[in-house]
Amino acid sequence: MQIAVLGYGVVGSGVVELFEKHKQGIISKSTQNNLDLKYILEIRDCTDSPYSPLFTKDFNDILNDDGVKIVVETMGGLHPAYDYVKASLHAGKHVVSSNKELVATFGYELLKLADKNNVNFLFEASVGGGIPIIRPISQCLAANEINEIAGILNGTTNFILTKMFGESMSFKDALLLAQENGYAERDPSADIDGIDSCRKICILASLCFGSHVFPKDTFTEGISSIKSEDVEYAKSWGGAIKLIAKAKKLENGKIHILVSPALVQNHSQIAHVDDVFNAILVRGDAIGEVVFYGRGAGKMPTASAVLADIIDCAKHDLRKKLFGWGAPVDDYVEDYMDMPVSLYVRAQIGDFLSALAHVEDVITGVTILKRKDAPGDELAFVTPPEKEGLLRQKLKKLPLNPLSIIRVTDY
Amino acid sequence: MQIAVLGYGVVGSGVVELFEKHKQGIISKSTQNNLDLKYILEIRDCTDSPYSPLFTKDFNDILNDDGVKIVVETMGGLHPAYDYVKASLHAGKHVVSSNKELVATFGYELLKLADKNNVNFLFEASVGGGIPIIRPISQCLAANEINEIAGILNGTTNFILTKMFGESMSFKDALLLAQENGYAERDPSADIDGIDSCRKICILASLCFGSHVFPKDTFTEGISSIKSEDVEYAKSWGGAIKLIAKAKKLENGKIHILVSPALVQNHSQIAHVDDVFNAILVRGDAIGEVVFYGRGAGKMPTASAVLADIIDCAKHDLRKKLFGWGAPVDDYVEDYMDMPVSLYVRAQIGDFLSALAHVEDVITGVTILKRKDAPGDELAFVTPPEKEGLLRQKLKKLPLNPLSIIRVTDY
Repeated sequence: MQIAVLGYGVVGSGVVELFEKHKQGIISKSTQNNLDLKYILEIRDCTDSPYSPLFTKDFNDILNDDGVKIVVETMGGLHPAYDYVKASLHAGKHVVSSNKELVATFGYELLKLADKNNVNFLFEASVGGGIPIIRPISQCLAANEINEIAGILNGTTNFILTKMFGESMSFKDALLLAQENGYAERDPSADIDGIDSCRKICILASLCFGSHVFPKDTFTEGISSIKSEDVEYAKSWGGAIKLIAKAKKLENGKIHILVSPALVQNHSQIAHVDDVFNAILVRGDAIGEVVFYGRGAGKMPTASAVLADIIDCAKHDLRKKLFGWGAPVDDYVEDYMDMPVSLYVRAQIGDFLSALAHVEDVITGVTILKRKDAPGDELAFVTPPEKEGLLRQKLKKLPLNPLSIIRVTDY
Repeated sequence: MQIAVLGYGVVGSGVVELFEKHKQGIISKSTQNNLDLKYILEIRDCTDSPYSPLFTKDFNDILNDDGVKIVVETMGGLHPAYDYVKASLHAGKHVVSSNKELVATFGYELLKLADKNNVNFLFEASVGGGIPIIRPISQCLAANEINEIAGILNGTTNFILTKMFGESMSFKDALLLAQENGYAERDPSADIDGIDSCRKICILASLCFGSHVFPKDTFTEGISSIKSEDVEYAKSWGGAIKLIAKAKKLENGKIHILVSPALVQNHSQIAHVDDVFNAILVRGDAIGEVVFYGRGAGKMPTASAVLADIIDCAKHDLRKKLFGWGAPVDDYVEDYMDMPVSLYVRAQIGDFLSALAHVEDVITGVTILKRKDAPGDELAFVTPPEKEGLLRQKLKKLPLNPLSIIRVTDY
């Protein structure tokens, strides 16, 4: 039984390295004595690699080789990844992917195609890097009705926020540091705008709630507008600001799904998840709350997750795993403006006492926040929970100029 | 395919309740259309139960019924649990158990027997209650060499320590409260003496490192001697005291395994695991550090783990899962006195300055701790790491009367 790896970037080279390192153990766990690596697809020349005999630039070498039973897609992006994965499944090959964009966009279609061809399409590495999450949800929590899932799903933004909090760095400086450390791309928008987190929460919501959820239907807000002032206020409130991705099943059959920065209280398990670490919280009817914590990205952690899938494909060669989700449903995502939420507001005001009186008059029960050296024309507060749309309408009526509005979470 | 549940206590009744609640989903996930509950073995009379037709007091009814393919052991204790499990495996029935004492004592023998009879012996619920841990370790982290595992594995003691820390309760009062809340048994020794944690870390060590480890070979210390004074000092040091169970693979092929209270720094993921929650930290060569957090006990969380195993047995009816560990090895556990450790010491002394000078002379680099209202004849400090045996010898030479010695962990 042979394996082909598509793409020899960070993840792909990690997969090859880890496979070679633990080959005997992997073979024994996979119960396939002849499990081996046959091809690496890469357009770059890699003649100085110890694996140079395995390299090919032509995907058809892989597709037409009947010995290749497992195709590992670690290219990223939608094309040609989608086309190669589709062709591989059609040809009766198992596919393992670490590509969250692919799974979030075409997951349902590819799972169906895998099912039809009696092969597996697995993607443990697409969410949470090396943190076991897809398999625990689909197997260990199988006797639960999962009603909520939330977490810190992006290591780059969490690193930036940790530096803004712990070392009072500005967003710009923290982003530069993340880039210097190799945590952020030169174009960091997929991370800092929340797009990466959005793809991941869509995959988790599809898996937990049973119908495919698309990133385009998921409201997504990034962290680039968070200021040092907000960090100070969050501290004085007794918490931290984290980029939270969450999805919740509603009683009306729809789901609430959202990616945005949020104030998290210090006593939360999520508040202390720092640097590039990720944490994923799952709420089920029997289990209560479970949290999975670890490195959400990086060469070897991600390769570890890919290899767990490879072992599973090899073990289940002759029968597909029962795993997946259903077709997308129209009008499935509830308007987030109709969901109750608490908001943190930092605003420019005229007269402090008069503004305060106005705020307390229109929104009952706000908590006023303080910070050192706040200018006299600044007011910050946290509202009680109320439908977000109504709350924002009320804010508009007030004699204040909001500089920052951030959701508050109850995790 | 039919199921028999042995023992209708907290866990057993939870299994029945959860099975009935999610029956359709469980059947669909198990791919066995005729999966159903046939017997409940219980010596008590349960005539007022909605499941009364299922009750039997005779295990032979179950053993001799060829329709029963899955036996669920939730009785606890060694006998007759061991005998029933053995007989069931011999008869070609899968067994699912939540019984940590059974697995820690007879795990290797029963896994071998299951293997011989081509059936599964699964026990996800035996460690961490509902927290997925056995399956993630054996499947998701399969491409890792796991070198260390540690955690808070007992909810009762963690509840007591949380109350001693957060509300300055004495050990005695916190234990009483735990008993009032139903978290601690009337005879709480299995929890507070660390026996329960010991069984669980033995199961995890066996799974991670490949050879059966017995509780009798594992040094175990409970929490009953921890005093309010120690809690105050731990706070001033910047941490908490937790009952930590840990196991580590050593370069000489042996393992280091230990259960004891330990000072944990506040920045650790484990320091903020409070009340009855558990957390399990796993270190692997590829994955780095992952932590699994959730309710480590309780009716429904534990039932959720048992049902995940039932689903797995039903799905893998015709072939056993590749899962287990090897025979016990002589002289496998390293003497913990030969392992390096930092110690926290609280001692009664004569003259403060003279005692301090002695301590600093004999143990270089100690950190002196302070607490409010400490009596003049008290000294508390944390040592740098050194072989525990040597460190304790040095302490004996000093002119002080140790009132409390607690290990310090680096998790």
